[in-house]
Amino acid sequence: MAIEVMRVRGAPAIGITAAYGLALAACLAQAGGADGSVARAVEAAAARLGATRPTAVNLRWALDRVSARVREAAGDASGVAAAIEEAQRIHGEQRRADEALADAGAGLFAPGSTVLTHCNTGPLATGGRGTALGVVIEGYQRGLVRHVLVDETRPRLQGARLTSWELAQHGVPHEVIADGAAASLMAGGEVAAVIVGADRIAANGDTANKIGTYGAAIAAHYHGIPFYVAAPLSTIDAATANGGAIPIEERDASEVLAVDGHPVAPEGARARNPAFDVTPAALIDGIVTERGVLRPPFDASIAAVLADAVAVAPPDAVPGAARD
Amino acid sequence: MAIEVMRVRGAPAIGITAAYGLALAACLAQAGGADGSVARAVEAAAARLGATRPTAVNLRWALDRVSARVREAAGDASGVAAAIEEAQRIHGEQRRADEALADAGAGLFAPGSTVLTHCNTGPLATGGRGTALGVVIEGYQRGLVRHVLVDETRPRLQGARLTSWELAQHGVPHEVIADGAAASLMAGGEVAAVIVGADRIAANGDTANKIGTYGAAIAAHYHGIPFYVAAPLSTIDAATANGGAIPIEERDASEVLAVDGHPVAPEGARARNPAFDVTPAALIDGIVTERGVLRPPFDASIAAVLADAVAVAPPDAVPGAARD
Repeated sequence: MAIEVMRVRGAPAIGITAAYGLALAACLAQAGGADGSVARAVEAAAARLGATRPTAVNLRWALDRVSARVREAAGDASGVAAAIEEAQRIHGEQRRADEALADAGAGLFAPGSTVLTHCNTGPLATGGRGTALGVVIEGYQRGLVRHVLVDETRPRLQGARLTSWELAQHGVPHEVIADGAAASLMAGGEVAAVIVGADRIAANGDTANKIGTYGAAIAAHYHGIPFYVAAPLSTIDAATANGGAIPIEERDASEVLAVDGHPVAPEGARARNPAFDVTPAALIDGIVTERGVLRPPFDASIAAVLADAVAVAPPDAVPGAARD
Repeated sequence: MAIEVMRVRGAPAIGITAAYGLALAACLAQAGGADGSVARAVEAAAARLGATRPTAVNLRWALDRVSARVREAAGDASGVAAAIEEAQRIHGEQRRADEALADAGAGLFAPGSTVLTHCNTGPLATGGRGTALGVVIEGYQRGLVRHVLVDETRPRLQGARLTSWELAQHGVPHEVIADGAAASLMAGGEVAAVIVGADRIAANGDTANKIGTYGAAIAAHYHGIPFYVAAPLSTIDAATANGGAIPIEERDASEVLAVDGHPVAPEGARARNPAFDVTPAALIDGIVTERGVLRPPFDASIAAVLADAVAVAPPDAVPGAARD
């Protein structure tokens, strides 16, 4: 399963992939099964996909949206059509959200800024331009971001492997650093701002993101450096009151004890491998969304933007609301 | 050169190795050279060794001690004898310092503590039992330390490779973690104390240590977790007023961009690789030395312990004083 083994990663991309996964399950069921098998197949696939990654909220959100459309459809043929349509709609929405989000966030950077980022949040992680990295690239194209410091992001090294590649594609000057070097570079005055993505944002602004994010946020706070989160509204989970309620996936110890199958610890060594951490709202200076930059207090600004989204979008397009 | 390529690492071990290196240079010069060549050879070797690792103060301290003894010696034969004697004396002193330091520090831990450490500070890094890890192992043997969390310590992975091996040798339960996971585990209440070694301690207590230490110290501070440094007095450099005056070695980018020659970033990627960072005295709750645990304000406690060391030890055995 591509989502489980992290062949597909990044919360928005996981949501889109899962939606297309349900559409595919619907097609296969229609081709091979008896009448009424599409809805059952979609339900089974949603259960299986939903269990793969507990932290990213976009996964459940996308599965719920497609499942709901299939349940409402009359018959197998319209169920398949509805699944495909909804998956494409989610994909299109996320692409537009990325554009709007990059536009809203780029102005956060003063001209000539060096920006630090963690993990991967570019086109490889979303359906479009990316979240945090989309903001950074837009900032570069506007002449505001001069240089990017990329946390390598152990254990999976998404920063070294993916983010550095994406920045190179856009010609953005950058350097990879060990995660542990970030605080020292902040102390040296080399970091103007930090921006990261999110796997789930709670109603109060607490943000789950790739392990290491929280340490970077504490270090930024200690140095008075602004710390931003960039994510589409689909990443906000109004049903999660705060970070304490976000389940944190613990992944296999082998990701820490080996790099690409190459052991980096003695045989028999054990490891802890929490895949995400929670950065409390108090350490976050702004949440960049497709509806603009939310500011503290986040419980109020998040409630307001979600209420506004409910008012202007069809109910099934509203994250959080879909979970009730 | 074993010190340069970090085949030998850990500030105390570097000092001892350098001292024996000068003794070896003296022997070779006596065997092969004309009269008077021992002093010249030792001087040349000291210059070469002194240039290898700018951050660890024990290196210069050990070179200065051996060089001074050779300069004072009358003739080549006594120069060789003096170099060997001084190297052995440094080694013995460090071994005794490790013992005293472990004894002084172990009591810092409450019974049942889980302790976090960074990099490698055990027997592999010193001439004896180790510094921070010596304290941890002694704490385990006294039933105070229950479990150790080991920062893998990117980029060179000394924690994963060496510290986990040393803890296993002593039967101490432990787990390796990505450096970025430390803050999250602190937030979860899983860390009772942090203890690390040092490459140089300034007169005011600011401490240079392996990159990543500073971030761990900030995170510990944020969570109200005590943060300790363990180092022999030879690591304190009275001639360095504060951390701003400590030169930080920048090592090759390849250490970040590859793991054991296995690339972890796209071809052409660039990296920053500061090998050390400076943790300000304000984040340190205690400095464990062979003369006991120094407490803030460190400028006063360091001055007092060094003055006391001057009073009881021969002048050439006093770190810092030897540099004037």
